[in-house]
Amino acid sequence: MRLHDADQRAFASDNYAGAHPEVLAAIADANGGHQVSYGEDAYTARLSEVVKDQFGSQAETFPVFNGTGANVVALTAVLPRWGAVVATATSHIHNDEGGAPERMTGLKLLVVPTPDGKLTPELIAMEARGWGDEHRAQPLAVSITQSTEVGTVYSPAEVRAVSEFAHANGMAVHMDGARLWNAAASLGVPFRDFTTDAGVDILSFGGTKNGLLGAEAVVLLDPARADGLVYLRKLTMQLGSKMRFMSAQLLALFDDDLGLRSAAHANAMAARLRSALDDVPGVLFSQPTQANALFAVLPADATARLHEQFRFYDWSAATGEVRWMCSFDTTEDDIDAFASAITTELTR
Amino acid sequence: MRLHDADQRAFASDNYAGAHPEVLAAIADANGGHQVSYGEDAYTARLSEVVKDQFGSQAETFPVFNGTGANVVALTAVLPRWGAVVATATSHIHNDEGGAPERMTGLKLLVVPTPDGKLTPELIAMEARGWGDEHRAQPLAVSITQSTEVGTVYSPAEVRAVSEFAHANGMAVHMDGARLWNAAASLGVPFRDFTTDAGVDILSFGGTKNGLLGAEAVVLLDPARADGLVYLRKLTMQLGSKMRFMSAQLLALFDDDLGLRSAAHANAMAARLRSALDDVPGVLFSQPTQANALFAVLPADATARLHEQFRFYDWSAATGEVRWMCSFDTTEDDIDAFASAITTELTR
Amino acid sequence: MRLHDADQRAFASDNYAGAHPEVLAAIADANGGHQVSYGEDAYTARLSEVVKDQFGSQAETFPVFNGTGANVVALTAVLPRWGAVVATATSHIHNDEGGAPERMTGLKLLVVPTPDGKLTPELIAMEARGWGDEHRAQPLAVSITQSTEVGTVYSPAEVRAVSEFAHANGMAVHMDGARLWNAAASLGVPFRDFTTDAGVDILSFGGTKNGLLGAEAVVLLDPARADGLVYLRKLTMQLGSKMRFMSAQLLALFDDDLGLRSAAHANAMAARLRSALDDVPGVLFSQPTQANALFAVLPADATARLHEQFRFYDWSAATGEVRWMCSFDTTEDDIDAFASAITTELTR
Amino acid sequence: MRLHDADQRAFASDNYAGAHPEVLAAIADANGGHQVSYGEDAYTARLSEVVKDQFGSQAETFPVFNGTGANVVALTAVLPRWGAVVATATSHIHNDEGGAPERMTGLKLLVVPTPDGKLTPELIAMEARGWGDEHRAQPLAVSITQSTEVGTVYSPAEVRAVSEFAHANGMAVHMDGARLWNAAASLGVPFRDFTTDAGVDILSFGGTKNGLLGAEAVVLLDPARADGLVYLRKLTMQLGSKMRFMSAQLLALFDDDLGLRSAAHANAMAARLRSALDDVPGVLFSQPTQANALFAVLPADATARLHEQFRFYDWSAATGEVRWMCSFDTTEDDIDAFASAITTELTR
Repeated sequence: MRLHDADQRAFASDNYAGAHPEVLAAIADANGGHQVSYGEDAYTARLSEVVKDQFGSQAETFPVFNGTGANVVALTAVLPRWGAVVATATSHIHNDEGGAPERMTGLKLLVVPTPDGKLTPELIAMEARGWGDEHRAQPLAVSITQSTEVGTVYSPAEVRAVSEFAHANGMAVHMDGARLWNAAASLGVPFRDFTTDAGVDILSFGGTKNGLLGAEAVVLLDPARADGLVYLRKLTMQLGSKMRFMSAQLLALFDDDLGLRSAAHANAMAARLRSALDDVPGVLFSQPTQANALFAVLPADATARLHEQFRFYDWSAATGEVRWMCSFDTTEDDIDAFASAITTELTR
Repeated sequence: MRLHDADQRAFASDNYAGAHPEVLAAIADANGGHQVSYGEDAYTARLSEVVKDQFGSQAETFPVFNGTGANVVALTAVLPRWGAVVATATSHIHNDEGGAPERMTGLKLLVVPTPDGKLTPELIAMEARGWGDEHRAQPLAVSITQSTEVGTVYSPAEVRAVSEFAHANGMAVHMDGARLWNAAASLGVPFRDFTTDAGVDILSFGGTKNGLLGAEAVVLLDPARADGLVYLRKLTMQLGSKMRFMSAQLLALFDDDLGLRSAAHANAMAARLRSALDDVPGVLFSQPTQANALFAVLPADATARLHEQFRFYDWSAATGEVRWMCSFDTTEDDIDAFASAITTELTR
Repeated sequence: MRLHDADQRAFASDNYAGAHPEVLAAIADANGGHQVSYGEDAYTARLSEVVKDQFGSQAETFPVFNGTGANVVALTAVLPRWGAVVATATSHIHNDEGGAPERMTGLKLLVVPTPDGKLTPELIAMEARGWGDEHRAQPLAVSITQSTEVGTVYSPAEVRAVSEFAHANGMAVHMDGARLWNAAASLGVPFRDFTTDAGVDILSFGGTKNGLLGAEAVVLLDPARADGLVYLRKLTMQLGSKMRFMSAQLLALFDDDLGLRSAAHANAMAARLRSALDDVPGVLFSQPTQANALFAVLPADATARLHEQFRFYDWSAATGEVRWMCSFDTTEDDIDAFASAITTELTR
Repeated sequence: MRLHDADQRAFASDNYAGAHPEVLAAIADANGGHQVSYGEDAYTARLSEVVKDQFGSQAETFPVFNGTGANVVALTAVLPRWGAVVATATSHIHNDEGGAPERMTGLKLLVVPTPDGKLTPELIAMEARGWGDEHRAQPLAVSITQSTEVGTVYSPAEVRAVSEFAHANGMAVHMDGARLWNAAASLGVPFRDFTTDAGVDILSFGGTKNGLLGAEAVVLLDPARADGLVYLRKLTMQLGSKMRFMSAQLLALFDDDLGLRSAAHANAMAARLRSALDDVPGVLFSQPTQANALFAVLPADATARLHEQFRFYDWSAATGEVRWMCSFDTTEDDIDAFASAITTELTR
């Protein structure tokens, strides 16, 4: 029943990749017999334990379907109905969620431009004001993305600076970790160094972009910040019935370091591409390459011709910026062929 | 990595069951290589074709994560912001979705009591009134469940009667088909006989309860009734990135009649249990057994002792009604052992 | 610039009546010069003091535009995002607010039928269950209306019984007091006897139906039950800029007992009509007449002919029930003429 | 019952002013007798006619309580659930409505910075993109404010340029006219020259800031753009019961040119202040003075001392910008005294 070419890969998105074989094996292991639905199963219990090992014993885990769901549940959990979220202009919650934060739970976003997809205390301060003024949506959360939507990575110290500013102003800190594994692999430090220990209060913990069929989780790192998450997950339509399979997927990432292996590989492929192209005239890299994504400005005609051979994203029609994304299954040959094609195109 | 007893089964929910092995095989087939995310993949394309074969060439298919998501997307799609839905007091949308319809997209529910979980024109008329009165949420949709939450099945004529009344009053017809396969197996007629051809406008097409890991779909049977479904699915956080795996699961149900086989088996197991218990004194069946669920009133002490051995749902604390649910993997031995235990309990 | 006949009155609604002249005088007094907008004015400050005198020193007052606004703000204030409200099937929040509670802040209503528009512990218990079950919208508030939508009045003991049951089950008590003045006049006891002291937590305090141009208030009777009301009022679009005029209207009701005088008069007119018609064959009163509204079942042809002369509401097309409403400006002559017409119609 | 000093005025807000005596007289005229509630009254009918005279015979009028309500109703009316609004970073809908647009009806705002509070095609184009991409909230409306939040006024040609760009891209045009009268007085042209005839589709028509107690209206200028406004107004809790009084206030503005007289006076007072201060060193005007508001940057210590004598708004803590607002009741003496105090403060 295979309907597609299983040998074709692209540079468009880590969502174009499929599932890692170890993930399918984990699902098969979780199959058979009956398990209580909606989270009262052995796999979800184990996942909760593993997350506590990684993020601290206080951490609470709530598997959800997708990243948008994780972000909306997490942000809603830490905000009153009058809360607003300070986020970057490039953030997924602002650009890529079809307005779900605003429409589903009435979140107000206050966005600030950034050079590199990262918030700093100074940038947050542009919108973090007006507390106590009922006319202004109250800025009570900051949302940062790790690794960012433009392929950069916050250092633990940078996260800590954000958290300290946020907490000093009564704001909660949310991390959109759709690519948290790529950040961890990039930084080479344990998750908790740049999450729990850096002051993050609630986390969207990603899995899908790192080789799962589809599973994410909200991880509440500071339980004092939120309650009612089980209700919120349900009412936002993010509660999976056969949760054992969602939890089994997420668990697989922790098993034998699959998640780190996959992310490190994707990052290495991105670095290989960067390295191959760094000196090619006409390729102007617009961001540092710190995880699995590359951003570069190319001449429009070169981009057009490359699109005939390879799928990738046009990031900005205005500037000619493109995005190239590597995933767990990108091969060295893929990179070399792509680099060669780009080089040929730009040097002819 | 198996953490559970794969030989243990229960009568609590068809969500306690796992995935059919043929479904896992279909997922494996869909794996490998890159496929465009968010629905532009070969499996979603094929699913759309198969659905057209089954429901009519006009039908449009939108895979979503879960049944609550399917219901909310479907109902929102056919209603203006001022619309209300007439539904049964036992409906899933009213009882089991944590208020998602109201909270996510502001749907107003107008619920009517029923003896058997089924709406009729007369019952709908109890709440279908007040059109043009701005003070009243406008009743512009009817939602019926097939098979119902209490295990009964609408005949095609019964669906048609609902649709004719609804359409005559300017109302759209939604069918919550979380257990549509069980209804099809029970009725022994093609899907379209009791959906498209019976006037249903939009359908929540179920899969999870019939042996999938987790996948449902909104099927728009009358495209004139709604537009913007791709946007609605996204903004309700029901858009899966690696959709090929969702579509592959749903496709598997149509392959070699897996869906019908599974549902017919579950129904047969329910019938076997009914047959074994129909004459047992103390077991008062409260609903006909037409699909895979049984509803009965038992003495409270018997229920309590049975719970020590078997998982099943207490349906009503007030009346002592219980629910027993069969699934694709329920065995004849399971049934016989359960029937025997109940009989023993009630005749001792 | 008068465009209407200022001598014509009807029995349709206390909203058809205009404003009491003393209210217009109070507005004129509040006019002139500048006052801080949005509530930081002398009239709102005074209103807060007067409300404390009436309802207890803990009471907090938030003027709003209309009754729907008051109800939605009040109920939202005492509920988490996953809360549900138990209310009567005849309640204004369910029938007459266009779905605002569901659509504006995602409230889930759980409605129960009542014979007389009044909730009791037994009736509340029909829907007050399922706490802790994430699938069920959590019943965390009870809403009662005083006087009710069908013209009946809760005794202080009846309110207390509701509150005790609610509080014992972790539920807050909201009172929709759109006609609170009529209830007070009917009971002949201070407000606090059937509100604060009877366990009501939050109140929609009515004014418009009792001779104002248009002003209501949310009164938080138990401040431990809610916070952020200033934000909620703003984000629900219920914050008036020139609030001095809203507060001045509400204040006028307390001045020289205007509110009680007006309500007592309206009640007396209703009693007069009831008395005149109680023995007229063909007029079947369907509710006791305890405030300013009468409900009766009339033959359809009589109703039709009466409509040619008088405006009143058809309450139920199914049963032929009609509603007759008296207001502060209903005169004895109005009553006598109406009673005479009805009598003539039904005895001819 | 006067609780305030009716001779004290300030420069803080046109909402600090009270009601024009002619408005109170109009309310008194509308009082007495019964009028059908919720808009079926003689004053609302007349208002609809007057608005048609002013804005074109196709215009439909819906009185509402306040400006936030008008904006939310208007924008929601012209947008599908997946729509987004392009607006300025200084817009009231973004800054001053407590997130009501996002929270009440799920509107997504896409804000762009402007030098002078005015959108242009070039500025709109910064966010007007991504149509057809389900991940992006669809930019289907533009909202402009006339006169703007920073006291500037769009010329008819500027409005037309916005509308042409918007319509060419499938976007509706909303005008927030909280200070529409000031714009009309400033431009010296009929309303329709810079609304209907300039391509505006739906209007928030202001009254409160120009001497009413409190009343605004949504005016649908292009009925093809929206339906269901009566339902939207109700479900957003913006439907007033005794609407005759709201309509009578709005009507008063058209009577004997009261609205234009008042606005022209307020504008003239602002011009007088500007003129008196234009050459005062230390007063750096940050915007042209085209309506009734002035914006200037002052030394912080001067601002602090002026605050001891006069109420006005600090517009930006970061830059030291302040706002001075004139209203219908500002006198020449008020201006001269304020100008003198500022001059003294800055030249000492």
